[in-house]
Amino acid sequence: MPEAPVVEIRNLSEHVDETVSVLGWVEHVRTHGKVGFVVVRDGTGIVQGVFVRKALSDDVWQAHEETPQESTVRMTGRVKADPRSPGGHELQVEDYRVLSRADDYPIQPKEHGVDFLLDHRHLWLRSKLQRAGLRVRAEVEQAIHDFFYERGFVRIDTPILTGSIGEHAGTLFETDYFGRPAFLAQTGQLYVEAACPAFRKVYCFGPTFRAEKSKTRRHLTEFWMVEPEVAFADSDENMRLQEAFVCYLVERALERCSEELEMLERDTAPLERVKAPFPRLDYGEAVERLRARGHDIEWGDDLGAPDEVALTEDFDRPVFVYNYPKQAKAFYMKENPDDPRTVLCDDLLAPEGYGEIIGGSQREDDLDKLLARIREEGLPEEAYGWYLDLRRYGTFPHSGFGLGLERTVAWITGRHHIRELIPFPRLMNRLDP
Amino acid sequence: MPEAPVVEIRNLSEHVDETVSVLGWVEHVRTHGKVGFVVVRDGTGIVQGVFVRKALSDDVWQAHEETPQESTVRMTGRVKADPRSPGGHELQVEDYRVLSRADDYPIQPKEHGVDFLLDHRHLWLRSKLQRAGLRVRAEVEQAIHDFFYERGFVRIDTPILTGSIGEHAGTLFETDYFGRPAFLAQTGQLYVEAACPAFRKVYCFGPTFRAEKSKTRRHLTEFWMVEPEVAFADSDENMRLQEAFVCYLVERALERCSEELEMLERDTAPLERVKAPFPRLDYGEAVERLRARGHDIEWGDDLGAPDEVALTEDFDRPVFVYNYPKQAKAFYMKENPDDPRTVLCDDLLAPEGYGEIIGGSQREDDLDKLLARIREEGLPEEAYGWYLDLRRYGTFPHSGFGLGLERTVAWITGRHHIRELIPFPRLMNRLDP
Repeated sequence: MPEAPVVEIRNLSEHVDETVSVLGWVEHVRTHGKVGFVVVRDGTGIVQGVFVRKALSDDVWQAHEETPQESTVRMTGRVKADPRSPGGHELQVEDYRVLSRADDYPIQPKEHGVDFLLDHRHLWLRSKLQRAGLRVRAEVEQAIHDFFYERGFVRIDTPILTGSIGEHAGTLFETDYFGRPAFLAQTGQLYVEAACPAFRKVYCFGPTFRAEKSKTRRHLTEFWMVEPEVAFADSDENMRLQEAFVCYLVERALERCSEELEMLERDTAPLERVKAPFPRLDYGEAVERLRARGHDIEWGDDLGAPDEVALTEDFDRPVFVYNYPKQAKAFYMKENPDDPRTVLCDDLLAPEGYGEIIGGSQREDDLDKLLARIREEGLPEEAYGWYLDLRRYGTFPHSGFGLGLERTVAWITGRHHIRELIPFPRLMNRLDP
Repeated sequence: MPEAPVVEIRNLSEHVDETVSVLGWVEHVRTHGKVGFVVVRDGTGIVQGVFVRKALSDDVWQAHEETPQESTVRMTGRVKADPRSPGGHELQVEDYRVLSRADDYPIQPKEHGVDFLLDHRHLWLRSKLQRAGLRVRAEVEQAIHDFFYERGFVRIDTPILTGSIGEHAGTLFETDYFGRPAFLAQTGQLYVEAACPAFRKVYCFGPTFRAEKSKTRRHLTEFWMVEPEVAFADSDENMRLQEAFVCYLVERALERCSEELEMLERDTAPLERVKAPFPRLDYGEAVERLRARGHDIEWGDDLGAPDEVALTEDFDRPVFVYNYPKQAKAFYMKENPDDPRTVLCDDLLAPEGYGEIIGGSQREDDLDKLLARIREEGLPEEAYGWYLDLRRYGTFPHSGFGLGLERTVAWITGRHHIRELIPFPRLMNRLDP
């Protein structure tokens, strides 16, 4: 008898009433008298195999009873549509081979501590909620590329190894680069600005690094950020692009990840309300609102996480806070011509307590003002020589922003801690696996 | 009079006989008596503005004559289709404003040394050949994502900051990670292997690092690599995936970057011949062929760059060399059951002298054999604990490969040095800009 063809579980609906094999890992075995059930995961879906004692050889029957969780198996049988089954189909098993018997699997349905799970991240990835979260991440990533590609942006990969350029000195990872110090990039922004005169609309997407001693649910030392930059766009156009982008990502997840969002028990009603335009609060107005709520904040202070959460509570979608005081923001942001105490910038705050997912600004395009800011902040002027060149050779108005991937995916999936939305999280106390 | 609408140059064909403005940078100014020409680049294309003395105010006429290269301008005029013009259209100029006068631009049409150009990479990006090469890169990157997305692969971002795991000890960049050493990843492979039991078919795409003191046209210290990994795929299926992938990338570049390939004077005939199946040479056969050509190589040696080039000369498309001797390859490659001196692996060599663009293999899935190899190579066993777990909890046949982005794009564009195919190259002696 020829071997049955191997099919991926997600394609079983094309093989109803045929005999096929699936290759995968055993999630669960149950035996009730003369009937047994083995749930197999093959990475494209899960399917239950039904073992009927009297229809099977002793070997096959015994093998199913003794299969440890996460063993690799080849399970062969006739495909039956069954809406009650996980995945919508089941296999009436005809043959079953254990390809590799697993040792006692460390992750059990019981409650494990998070340190234990993170220590076993290489196995924890196989768990249902982790699979669902990371599939949403992958879908959002493809959506990021599609959004910019469809709009004629050119992708520009910015370097990780850099001279001392960064926004947050003191939180840089350093390495020896053939005898001179190099630092891991915290942003690709300055580099994408340089690419604007070549391509007008550009973006980068990659890992960025912060050697911060933060242990919150919103911090990773290595996280992914997408940073578009648009020549001749002002701050208003920048916010409109952010709106369109965030709506696109949310819509795409709703459209193509409904199964995953359901597994994650995500209430999708708040996501369905994410439509442009988003409300915009001037920084001054935001401070007044916060003071009226009893927050201890003065004009000039940056907003803290509890402030961000409070500001979103009055709205049913993400909220912009724009034009912050100069001293609260980075040196490269453009001075607001209508109020030089402030800069043309915005933060986008996600609803439901998720806080800032985007920081954006129009960039300072005046050479003298930019130089003055670099000096005021005591930054190493010589390191910015090439960046200043962009203001010497045809300076131009331009704006851009950075969206944090893990924060965005945590919000879309409704997960509490962003460390679950990256395959191998790096935290202050965690570098393995 | 209301201001004319700003349009992107690539969309001029939709505005023939209308008056529009373009915003961009001046590439070139010529004046012949009573007619002048200004070529403007806006990042989406270039267009020539025609200035007719008698139709323009003194201010406008004078402004055009005095515009330094790379100044930012707003040029307004009526769009005329003109097949002889660069870009296929020209503007009959009605108004012209210099938004920012550039300083003397350092890059001139004359021959500059490569060090000078690399020192000015932030400006060199604006040059025609650099723009063309990087556009092809961006197109190939989108094609990479589309290829895997269309085939149901799940993208898995692997970490840059890692414990001491890597293929080439001694060529690692090291950093202090809150008191313990961390290393910049040389590959994401071990991590994507861990994700196979969750998603079956996965891939990563990101920057990788080699602290190698190599100064060749094929080396960067920071380069981008795409690494797919497929559960239950053997070495043969792995080579078929590589073939399909490379054909897809080449076809996509031919289809959507014809203008760029023409700018780069790329002869596309060799690219059009890149069709599956690719010839396959067993390592032993490759050595015999090389010896017959007079190369000084013995069975057991790895192939050098000149060997790779020689092997491709007899064929009109990329060539696989497969099943190398164990000692020439990494510890994680699966022993060849038909010849245990060798491993189930392949390198894909690009034609026209470009050499290796892919290294792939079936992975050793036997715990004991893998452990023995780790010990033989004197690798730190404790660092591979989690990787060995993958062989303890449902081990499975699987294969994957890594394709180097810059080498591939250098081949597709026909450029000599891969440093031009990454926006900000990092070389042994170069960390800026």
